[in-house]
Amino acid sequence: MTQFTLATLAAIIDERAKADPTESYTAKLLARGPAKCAQKLGEEGVEAAIALVKGDRQELTKEAADILYHLVVVLKSGGVSLDEVMNELADRTGQSGLQEKASRHGD
Amino acid sequence: MTQFTLATLAAIIDERAKADPTESYTAKLLARGPAKCAQKLGEEGVEAAIALVKGDRQELTKEAADILYHLVVVLKSGGVSLDEVMNELADRTGQSGLQEKASRHGD
Amino acid sequence: MTQFTLATLAAIIDERAKADPTESYTAKLLARGPAKCAQKLGEEGVEAAIALVKGDRQELTKEAADILYHLVVVLKSGGVSLDEVMNELADRTGQSGLQEKASRHGD
Amino acid sequence: MTQFTLATLAAIIDERAKADPTESYTAKLLARGPAKCAQKLGEEGVEAAIALVKGDRQELTKEAADILYHLVVVLKSGGVSLDEVMNELADRTGQSGLQEKASRHGD
Repeated sequence: MTQFTLATLAAIIDERAKADPTESYTAKLLARGPAKCAQKLGEEGVEAAIALVKGDRQELTKEAADILYHLVVVLKSGGVSLDEVMNELADRTGQSGLQEKASRHGD
Repeated sequence: MTQFTLATLAAIIDERAKADPTESYTAKLLARGPAKCAQKLGEEGVEAAIALVKGDRQELTKEAADILYHLVVVLKSGGVSLDEVMNELADRTGQSGLQEKASRHGD
Repeated sequence: MTQFTLATLAAIIDERAKADPTESYTAKLLARGPAKCAQKLGEEGVEAAIALVKGDRQELTKEAADILYHLVVVLKSGGVSLDEVMNELADRTGQSGLQEKASRHGD
Repeated sequence: MTQFTLATLAAIIDERAKADPTESYTAKLLARGPAKCAQKLGEEGVEAAIALVKGDRQELTKEAADILYHLVVVLKSGGVSLDEVMNELADRTGQSGLQEKASRHGD
């Protein structure tokens, strides 16, 4: 089982966001602004949906990876941290635990 | 910082998928089939994109949570494990490490 | 062959836009603002895409009608006339003719 | 006012569909199959949605033209005629008239 998590991905994207836009796809995408980042995420949603309906497991795996990448870029562009999203999910699923609740003090 | 991860979410969805579709939204959605699961993911992609362009942080947080939830449901519907997607991401970002490489033997 | 065209649809939507939002779905949708109109169009795009991949002719027919309806609402919301869109298409396809060219003077 | 209508566009696309895929974008897109045609339509829906939320009239005009083009390609790919979609719209809006009703005999 891999130890690569969404937090790993977010850390990589944070790092690449500081790079020169001519050298990093991530930095370039962020430099193009929120509408471009948003467009890519929306497009990946469509592509993953189609991959599932086609029943293409390999394509679905790749499109799911694309969604996660572009979602983290979108969060970066919008100034939302991954922790905020995870807290929202924890809150909804009622699996929050004391640690999660503590982190939400001061909302 | 919350300990709630995508793996936590996937475990919750695996559990709920076994419930009666009249009692669990997740079970009901999966019972409606891949096209319905795909539609929901595509729609959430559109909504998150719009939230970013509007510059609405709170809405973006909620829509990002919706995408993650529906993405995991889509993977469940398509028979793709979260590990496969994470391995794809690890592979792309070149942060795979020995553990990840080992897990890909036999692909 | 039906005489119902996009221009017919646009005229109907222009009329309904003036109605009370509690009595007309079109008026209500426009009153909710551009982001809501945009969301509906994006969602219909996803649904039509899925209907095509499923190979469901009847569903595709309905989803295509939904797209046209929501596209005209979006144009209304954004202050773009159907003629502007048709001129753009005529221009691209090189089938513009003198009448179309004349209409573009003063752009 | 332009005389270019959706029917004009459909006739052009019918013609181009017969061309060599190496010479016509339309023929090439159709040759790539329904999933690719569907993907393009879904993506244009996202882009038009973003253009409206941005409040960019010029971009919205172009994206609306893109949607109409890709919608007609999708209908072609799915074997649905534009008349069927227009009849669906006429039926819904209750503006069908005798001619439209006549055309639906034998449904």
